[in-house]
Amino acid sequence: MKIYDIAILGLGTVGGGTYRVIEKEQEQIIKKEGFGINVKKVLALDYSVDIPEEKKAHSIDEIIEDPDIKVVCELIGGKTIAKDFIIKCLKAGKTVVSANKELIAHSWGEIQNAAKESGAGFYFEASVGGGIPILRAVQESLQANTINSIYAIINGTTNYILSDMEDHNRDFDEVLKEAQALGYAEADPTSDIEAFDSTYKLSILSSMAFGVHIPIEKIYREGITRITGQDMQIAHELGMTIKLLAIAKKNGNEVEARVHPTMIPLSHPIASVKGVFNSIYLNGSAVGELMFYGKGAGAFPTASSVVSDIIYAINMDRQHKYADYLDSDNTDVRFSTNWVSGYYLRFSVADRPGVLAKIAGLMGKHNVGIASVIQKGTAGDDVPLIFVTYDTAEEDLNAALTEICLLDEVNEVSASIRVEQ
Amino acid sequence: MKIYDIAILGLGTVGGGTYRVIEKEQEQIIKKEGFGINVKKVLALDYSVDIPEEKKAHSIDEIIEDPDIKVVCELIGGKTIAKDFIIKCLKAGKTVVSANKELIAHSWGEIQNAAKESGAGFYFEASVGGGIPILRAVQESLQANTINSIYAIINGTTNYILSDMEDHNRDFDEVLKEAQALGYAEADPTSDIEAFDSTYKLSILSSMAFGVHIPIEKIYREGITRITGQDMQIAHELGMTIKLLAIAKKNGNEVEARVHPTMIPLSHPIASVKGVFNSIYLNGSAVGELMFYGKGAGAFPTASSVVSDIIYAINMDRQHKYADYLDSDNTDVRFSTNWVSGYYLRFSVADRPGVLAKIAGLMGKHNVGIASVIQKGTAGDDVPLIFVTYDTAEEDLNAALTEICLLDEVNEVSASIRVEQ
Repeated sequence: MKIYDIAILGLGTVGGGTYRVIEKEQEQIIKKEGFGINVKKVLALDYSVDIPEEKKAHSIDEIIEDPDIKVVCELIGGKTIAKDFIIKCLKAGKTVVSANKELIAHSWGEIQNAAKESGAGFYFEASVGGGIPILRAVQESLQANTINSIYAIINGTTNYILSDMEDHNRDFDEVLKEAQALGYAEADPTSDIEAFDSTYKLSILSSMAFGVHIPIEKIYREGITRITGQDMQIAHELGMTIKLLAIAKKNGNEVEARVHPTMIPLSHPIASVKGVFNSIYLNGSAVGELMFYGKGAGAFPTASSVVSDIIYAINMDRQHKYADYLDSDNTDVRFSTNWVSGYYLRFSVADRPGVLAKIAGLMGKHNVGIASVIQKGTAGDDVPLIFVTYDTAEEDLNAALTEICLLDEVNEVSASIRVEQ
Repeated sequence: MKIYDIAILGLGTVGGGTYRVIEKEQEQIIKKEGFGINVKKVLALDYSVDIPEEKKAHSIDEIIEDPDIKVVCELIGGKTIAKDFIIKCLKAGKTVVSANKELIAHSWGEIQNAAKESGAGFYFEASVGGGIPILRAVQESLQANTINSIYAIINGTTNYILSDMEDHNRDFDEVLKEAQALGYAEADPTSDIEAFDSTYKLSILSSMAFGVHIPIEKIYREGITRITGQDMQIAHELGMTIKLLAIAKKNGNEVEARVHPTMIPLSHPIASVKGVFNSIYLNGSAVGELMFYGKGAGAFPTASSVVSDIIYAINMDRQHKYADYLDSDNTDVRFSTNWVSGYYLRFSVADRPGVLAKIAGLMGKHNVGIASVIQKGTAGDDVPLIFVTYDTAEEDLNAALTEICLLDEVNEVSASIRVEQ
């Protein structure tokens, strides 16, 4: 029986998990695939997992120069040394498996070119949705579909925070602090709560789903820091909840891609995705609605995808496929920004006669249809007044808001959250 | 650019859908895969879809003898002529794609042997879960996992009926008649409502997930005909719902496989799967909880899987993989029947003093722990008395029920539904 040698770069959460999963599942991999996997070399700064001495590499060259090693797993992460290592390995003809969403979102084309030149493969299932096999599904199961839309919860930290705010009626800051104490959020949570992480993942996922490169610069990004417990509570009163959704839609050559807090009906399949779970909901021309749900992070779920890529790469041998759309300049693709969606708007107003009529009038003037109105609290100079609109073009809404803010009775727009049905 | 010729056998819902999807999605298949698909021949009794004359085959031999045709899609269904056609095609070295769950569940080993002999491929993604790419995920994405358990809603008709009973507080017979009128249930609904269909699908799915052949004869089967509106209502009072679940578990060499109505908490991810949707929820050693959700039937969702298999088969060329566990006699696998689960038990009793104590006493005697008791209605000779038990071994429960039924006060066990948490 054939044993394939591989190398692992980085031995943190995912690297350690990958090493352990390969050890633990060796027997059933051999049973199902007819071959085994041997981690011949590991390159790491810190060997926290118990690794035999002879497996410890002392330089990337030791791995590159080892002709037995056909697949290298880059599990260092970030944009530092990882890219240099990946390019070196690919140029040496070694297939690379990576979970590095930030790097891939930024440098996918460059990395793939290095792979193409040498005929090596480049796989990155673990970069989106952790253990959820969404990229393989898009490539190997949905070939007969034109994918029209994606609605995805692809950041566990923010979903944990929003779920906790929802279930325990708490405010953002309070839950974030607790999440940090529990290790569900980083000491510097910016990448998660400001939605950078989701944006990287949406860039990769939507590019593969649409067969068109969706660069991160073309993705609108808005984090969850301004979501209040009050808005979450009102959402529930309206039969809805608030999720940080990564949304991408393609209609002919027109593409829109955006990550922002979104109100969705509680009856939507992804509304019930709680805590650190991820979920990708998409619509394909033949398959219709399809949803994937699972653990979006963690050592073993992510390792599940990494090891799957290793096995897949071995099975593909030298017949690797490449994302040719990365090379095209996409001149036929139009990235739209005048999106259509409903809006939840919470104004702070002085409760004087006629204020509701004035606001409603300005909305009507700009073609913004009103689905419902909620007036909260008693008279005063700072009373919340909530509108939910029907689907409306972003430009119309902004025009209406500009005029509304000029009204004497309106203190501010306290919240503006897009609504998807 | 290469165009691959294929043939379609059968032009009913799925055959017609497949023909149309190939026509409609040709352009994006070429863009993504670098090759096209041409339906060169169609063999059907009735050409309801508009097919050019020259594509109509007049016999299976015309297809078998055509050297251009590499892949044949068997979409006739059932156990009739389909098997004969499949075997003939495979023996002629043509790869076969099929959606025929009944046939595959019955004759998988025999069909696969014919494929192995000629080196042809045999693919059947569409046989389980319609458009949900669950079989490909098990084979190409979860290789690093020992799959421990599967909980699946894989019959749309019964899920439609149960959802309607749940949402509109109606009884089984009433909803079935309406489902038949609407075309959601067959004129002879036996295969669906008596859970034969789910059993075929669980046999295929669990065999692939566990890497061990789970023949249909080893799967316990119980349909939904005895579920009443009353039980659905009480389930809701208990924070639960009732689904027809296909359940398979593997623990070492011990396997259990069963299809039966099951009470599950409303908070479980599959509890919210409504109407004709399907969902497969599984637990893998590395990935943990994973769920797939989508349309389990219908022309285009099923065609999505069929066309995916065609493309996959073309890409695999002659390197087809086979389920070698079908050849083994599985002597090391033990199929258990003394399953452990909770139970919802509804007794009809005469409301006399001490009846509850007597029943509870007999349960205690046989190690059946009681989680909750509900007594409904007023005094009389036919009063419902409901128990929900903790997890208990099936044999213990049956021993308790046997003694309980001998009590003078107990008229009958009106309902007995397994509970999974």
